[in-house]
Amino acid sequence: MTTASPTTSAPAVTGVSLVAGEEVRGDAGELRAVDPRTGEATGPIFALVGPDAVERACRAAAEAFPVYRDLAPADRAAFLRRAADEVDALGDLLTRTGSLETGLPEARLEGERARTVGQLRLLADVVEQGDHLGARLDTALPDRTPLPRPDLRLVKVPVGPVAVFGASNFPLAFSVGGGDTAAALAAGCPVVVKAHGAHPGTSELVGRAITRAVAASGLPAGVFSLVFGPGSQVGQALVADPRIASVGFTGSRAGGRALMGTAAARPVPIPVHAEMSAVNPVVVLPGALDEPAALATAFVGSLTLGAGQFCTNPGVLLLPAGGAGDAFVAAAAAAVADATGQPMLTGGIADACRRGTAALVDHDDVEEVAAGGTGAGPNAPGPRLLSTTAAAYRDRPELQEEVFGAVALLVRYGSDDELLDALRATQGQLTATLHAGPADGADAALVEQVVPLLVERAGRVLFGGWPTGVEVSHAMVHGGPWPATSDGRTTSVGTLAVDRFLRPVCYQSAPQDVLPPSLRDDNPWHLTRRVDGVLRRPEEQA
Amino acid sequence: MTTASPTTSAPAVTGVSLVAGEEVRGDAGELRAVDPRTGEATGPIFALVGPDAVERACRAAAEAFPVYRDLAPADRAAFLRRAADEVDALGDLLTRTGSLETGLPEARLEGERARTVGQLRLLADVVEQGDHLGARLDTALPDRTPLPRPDLRLVKVPVGPVAVFGASNFPLAFSVGGGDTAAALAAGCPVVVKAHGAHPGTSELVGRAITRAVAASGLPAGVFSLVFGPGSQVGQALVADPRIASVGFTGSRAGGRALMGTAAARPVPIPVHAEMSAVNPVVVLPGALDEPAALATAFVGSLTLGAGQFCTNPGVLLLPAGGAGDAFVAAAAAAVADATGQPMLTGGIADACRRGTAALVDHDDVEEVAAGGTGAGPNAPGPRLLSTTAAAYRDRPELQEEVFGAVALLVRYGSDDELLDALRATQGQLTATLHAGPADGADAALVEQVVPLLVERAGRVLFGGWPTGVEVSHAMVHGGPWPATSDGRTTSVGTLAVDRFLRPVCYQSAPQDVLPPSLRDDNPWHLTRRVDGVLRRPEEQA
Repeated sequence: MTTASPTTSAPAVTGVSLVAGEEVRGDAGELRAVDPRTGEATGPIFALVGPDAVERACRAAAEAFPVYRDLAPADRAAFLRRAADEVDALGDLLTRTGSLETGLPEARLEGERARTVGQLRLLADVVEQGDHLGARLDTALPDRTPLPRPDLRLVKVPVGPVAVFGASNFPLAFSVGGGDTAAALAAGCPVVVKAHGAHPGTSELVGRAITRAVAASGLPAGVFSLVFGPGSQVGQALVADPRIASVGFTGSRAGGRALMGTAAARPVPIPVHAEMSAVNPVVVLPGALDEPAALATAFVGSLTLGAGQFCTNPGVLLLPAGGAGDAFVAAAAAAVADATGQPMLTGGIADACRRGTAALVDHDDVEEVAAGGTGAGPNAPGPRLLSTTAAAYRDRPELQEEVFGAVALLVRYGSDDELLDALRATQGQLTATLHAGPADGADAALVEQVVPLLVERAGRVLFGGWPTGVEVSHAMVHGGPWPATSDGRTTSVGTLAVDRFLRPVCYQSAPQDVLPPSLRDDNPWHLTRRVDGVLRRPEEQA
Repeated sequence: MTTASPTTSAPAVTGVSLVAGEEVRGDAGELRAVDPRTGEATGPIFALVGPDAVERACRAAAEAFPVYRDLAPADRAAFLRRAADEVDALGDLLTRTGSLETGLPEARLEGERARTVGQLRLLADVVEQGDHLGARLDTALPDRTPLPRPDLRLVKVPVGPVAVFGASNFPLAFSVGGGDTAAALAAGCPVVVKAHGAHPGTSELVGRAITRAVAASGLPAGVFSLVFGPGSQVGQALVADPRIASVGFTGSRAGGRALMGTAAARPVPIPVHAEMSAVNPVVVLPGALDEPAALATAFVGSLTLGAGQFCTNPGVLLLPAGGAGDAFVAAAAAAVADATGQPMLTGGIADACRRGTAALVDHDDVEEVAAGGTGAGPNAPGPRLLSTTAAAYRDRPELQEEVFGAVALLVRYGSDDELLDALRATQGQLTATLHAGPADGADAALVEQVVPLLVERAGRVLFGGWPTGVEVSHAMVHGGPWPATSDGRTTSVGTLAVDRFLRPVCYQSAPQDVLPPSLRDDNPWHLTRRVDGVLRRPEEQA
């Protein structure tokens, strides 16, 4: 592996796909980024590619797979760190381009770039440590009766090339070089990214950075490709390609379900890891309302952060009826009324937000509590605060539809039972948050009933605080039961995300020279391994 | 938990379903076991139940879930051991009944009973140890800039009630109390079993044993149900029930795909773990043919074991053309011709075997090499040995269709490239086996090319030996890429099988008294946990 430093000359955005290291200008239509703050086009014209380029990218990924799969941990980790360095080296050009294409402030994108490269570096550490390989050795028992036991050794191997669909709302952290790409590359899977059309220049810059890292690391070019294609045609072709073994997607429920259908209908069905929609309920118990105004202000802060365009945006808040609950509502209403809309990521997202808001406002069981002012430009609808009863929320599933944006529904409950029934009716979520009074206070009994309902329904349960903000670490879960994701058994953020792209293989009675290093007696990768059922550190494996 | 000894009075087979501890006699048709050796009915008439009983079983499972989920490891382990004791205590009655219903020898069923109870006891050990919970703690970093890190703790929780479909060919180890049931119960999931109609009395006996264990352990009755229902109606209702969170199935590809379709079309899609079909290719390299006759005899022994009715039956063997390969064929042909058919499990399975054999024999590219004699009774087709070329095998996927029974296809390759191309065309498998000469011999270069192709296609790769015989241990993988299973990322045999029924949940900033014991600072379950990315034993967690 080479150790030359990252490219420092500023790369240009030229409007091309990157297919296994080659710049490809297609003829399947054109795309131009739009500054959502003004509605005006920005950056070069992207020449979209069709299924033929997808096919080439997938073929190159399949060809690269055996080499990339078998890299030593140190080499794969070095590549991930190089990719991080290359993205970091994009510097201001990346944040400026991203800001122009998304309307997000440059400071936010600087933070997101730090998170993106931090994620790649954390996964490099995981790859080097090797615990994710889950190596297991069962000793042969040649004298066992009635039958001997053969030598059995298990290790997790990468599933194969992975298709990744970038998200609109995190142009760096959930896009071309984001969580799914990082996890797949860490697992040993080549990646073909379908770029999100909302931030093409940002995508190309990151794609070029990873492409450079692939080349600088001496890896086969097919380890990484990035395609810009029209509508769903290229995406469907990508998921249908027989060389693709798994899919990572962040987006709408309709989009996720369509990809799941394509994946299930293949001659060889494959898993789809789709992160789709959540309203991230926040449960406020009576004991948490000592300072209702402060709590309400913090809530509106989380609600309106980034124009509410987070998967973990708190879209539903369950609150006691009357009393201190009313004080919370008054303070929240004032904060929302004082707030102004911020430019959303695209015109389409702003339109969908307006439509979703209107559907809720027009709902017989919903009252409008407050509306903030419309912001500058064409795509900045004001934040909204709505209210309904726990009984209506329990009975009307359409009240749980996510409105992507700074729109929240207050659900007022008149009794513990009303709250519990509303929670039992709540669909799967990425997060659920509980605000309760002191452990020795009046909320204690209710907490005991509420927590299991939240754990059953969410991938992450917060005690106090707000769900926006997702730490990239070992214990993070960004996933959850349907419809939050297609499969709540994995996470798309944090180091456990590597697991979704691995499968176990057992070697039976294999000679030492045939075994992968992870399973050899001499344990050259110094792995902690499970020997006859017990985890043993390298120095404990005789 | 009670510690009374297992029931010793012999329980009767009465022809009922067991719905959350209650004997249920339905009116959805009748079923009687048939002794496949004679074609005559045996045992009582089973009164089949319809979707209403399934609904009751699922409701009871959902009600039992919170209690069963939250059991301490020692209590869940005690229950699993009690279930094992109860099955063991069925003694000769179980093996006699099983033999009558399946035609399998009593000695085989005694071994299978030992395996089944051993599986339950091994999983009890796993539950007590707790490593499968995958507990992770990320320490809070309140002073970190620009943002503090909250306290984050991850643990895997059971997914919810699981539907299990018993297999025909292992009336104990892959049926009512078999691998899927044991893994789901170990994970903390209640189980609703749809019994296989081929061994109803055996199923009822085991169902009663587990039901007794549930009661003796003081658990909610809904932890376990067993339903006998007509055709696919009850099975589809079970998978469609909104309370079911996951499915374990062993059977045909058509059956597995149908359940996958039902599971994917639910308002809330769920995973299906279907183990379906495999031909378990055996690759014989030239250097392994020093003693072709001995190898051929061993092969035919594996092929005809249990009338070839194993998921891991070696249905395809790739062999050099000419020379020592011919000697292997001659010896294998003689062994097959000398062998006699054994009674298959059911008339339907024997018919399918005859049809599948005929389709292969009639195939333009297939030659018949040898046929054993038909065995006694109506259901004992003789073993068959067929042959084709590597080129035909590569180009004709229908030659990879599993014929469930003692039927093997020899694939003769004329060159290394022909072998490699045939392997590249090979579908996903439960197992793949390599017989090669010494590591320093002429096969060495080819071994290097063959092994990765086998690892890509199979869940278990054997070096020498034969794939029949699946060890229940920590490093076993009984799974594999499509069409061997619906999802090669898990195993249905061995301790790793627990993982398929778990999902991760993250607790953020949770007070100690709200955390589950697995995540508390005082670590009352003495778990090894990953603290800030590093595995630490209980005594290393300050």
